[in-house]
Amino acid sequence: MRAVSNGHNPELKAALEHLLSSGGKRVRPVVALLTGGMLGADPARLITLAAAIELLHTATLVHDDLIDGSLLRRGIPTLNSQWTPAATVLTGDFIFARAAMLAAETDSVEVMRLFSGTLSTIVNGEITQMFNRDSRSFRDDYFHRIYAKTASMFELATSAAAVLSPPCEEVYDSVRRYGYEIGMAFQIIDDVLDFTGQQTEVGKPVARDLQQGLITLPTIYYFESHPDNADLQPVLDGYIYDENRLARLTTAIRQSDAIDKSVEEAGGFIGRALELLEDLPATEERQALEDLAEFIVRRQK
Amino acid sequence: MRAVSNGHNPELKAALEHLLSSGGKRVRPVVALLTGGMLGADPARLITLAAAIELLHTATLVHDDLIDGSLLRRGIPTLNSQWTPAATVLTGDFIFARAAMLAAETDSVEVMRLFSGTLSTIVNGEITQMFNRDSRSFRDDYFHRIYAKTASMFELATSAAAVLSPPCEEVYDSVRRYGYEIGMAFQIIDDVLDFTGQQTEVGKPVARDLQQGLITLPTIYYFESHPDNADLQPVLDGYIYDENRLARLTTAIRQSDAIDKSVEEAGGFIGRALELLEDLPATEERQALEDLAEFIVRRQK
Repeated sequence: MRAVSNGHNPELKAALEHLLSSGGKRVRPVVALLTGGMLGADPARLITLAAAIELLHTATLVHDDLIDGSLLRRGIPTLNSQWTPAATVLTGDFIFARAAMLAAETDSVEVMRLFSGTLSTIVNGEITQMFNRDSRSFRDDYFHRIYAKTASMFELATSAAAVLSPPCEEVYDSVRRYGYEIGMAFQIIDDVLDFTGQQTEVGKPVARDLQQGLITLPTIYYFESHPDNADLQPVLDGYIYDENRLARLTTAIRQSDAIDKSVEEAGGFIGRALELLEDLPATEERQALEDLAEFIVRRQK
Repeated sequence: MRAVSNGHNPELKAALEHLLSSGGKRVRPVVALLTGGMLGADPARLITLAAAIELLHTATLVHDDLIDGSLLRRGIPTLNSQWTPAATVLTGDFIFARAAMLAAETDSVEVMRLFSGTLSTIVNGEITQMFNRDSRSFRDDYFHRIYAKTASMFELATSAAAVLSPPCEEVYDSVRRYGYEIGMAFQIIDDVLDFTGQQTEVGKPVARDLQQGLITLPTIYYFESHPDNADLQPVLDGYIYDENRLARLTTAIRQSDAIDKSVEEAGGFIGRALELLEDLPATEERQALEDLAEFIVRRQK
């Protein structure tokens, strides 16, 4: 991943270094590597795919942070907090381009198709989120949004790894769906941690989603059992909100059963993911994919 | 091209419609279609490639206009003049994604490789332009910049069309270089028209490049014969500049031989393009590529 900026502009190299140094969990490339390992993919092409996926993810984060005006990501300053919007847009574009080049290096048109389709799903999801603020079902909107934002890329990781493996038509769908299920769970837990996490642990301020008017699963559950909460209505309506009421609402949600219900819902996705794994080759990698699925709901950051 | 937004967000559909309605010359897809026609490419895949190239070009324009803060493009308002930066970034990303999907539909890994490589060249060129303002050779910088910005995409149009044609190793390089030569000439003439064109004809304000501190070939020629012009130095140094001196400088460049010298330099590229065509199959399409090359230096907008 670091090598993709070789021979390019020094500021770009520094920006990529900055982004990659923050680490992050690298869970998407790990999912690709384990899936391909389980199915017998060619290691060299698989590693290229894994790097391509992490770069695609990184590129979307760069543009996302610019759009949201985020100042921290993974506990370190975002590019847009230090650079101009113009430089940030271009750095994101450059990382997209390099991700696409790595994807092309897998030498598979099908991988390219999955790749560009996923980018299209992610961006369409963000645009929908930006414009459709008056939709009627929070729950439907939420699940569509987290599919586009997160689960689509997990699905890409597993299905593209399967494409690089010896033909295995009968397992392809299970593998793709395993990616979908853990991706949905991963985002739900991320949204729970936005309420329950400490700033230093999650690397971003607490209840940031709510502050930005973003309705996630804990808020939806809380709303279902407290439809008349006066602090909540303005947030649901998309109005800008005063700090005190927001702090009070955050505490109410944190202390309610909305958190447990959300974790339980994530657990449902993980249960389905584990069932899907049963049809797949019983290798060390499958065991690791099981452990990973269980870790996703248990993680504290 | 219009169909790529089907089934997506209505605002996105409207934005794409707006962008495509402005028309433009569509010269890049025409170059791809003629090249592929000349070499016997499969028509369906060739048309897909041509649409992919025009969309890639459109996506880079959307992000460019945002970066430059341009309000007009092709005589109609830019997206960023009417939308938020966030929506503009995402619309550009969406068009990139759909361009990549169309490129993948050509079913050629080599086309995908050329595609992502070109995007990487274009973006790296813009980043270099943003950061390296103190470079020593204006001429070297200029030629690198117009290659990255324009000629790389003409090169993509011709070489990707050749990839979709029956194997023709011996003509591949001539075809690629034809794309390079006309692309370089195309941008030089664009830069000349920025000085000589009327606002309504070029669809953007006159001498906009100079106003933005962008040094193009006419300014370089003018500087070579008038190294002591006091109005010019602050522009070369990248300082913000007062309107009166800028207007005086623009008039001086317009009336100097820098314009003719620049057109002549474009003519040199076109001459080499025409020579390269001589090695290629003598078809109707080759004739059209000849006419196109000659049109590029003659055009008034």
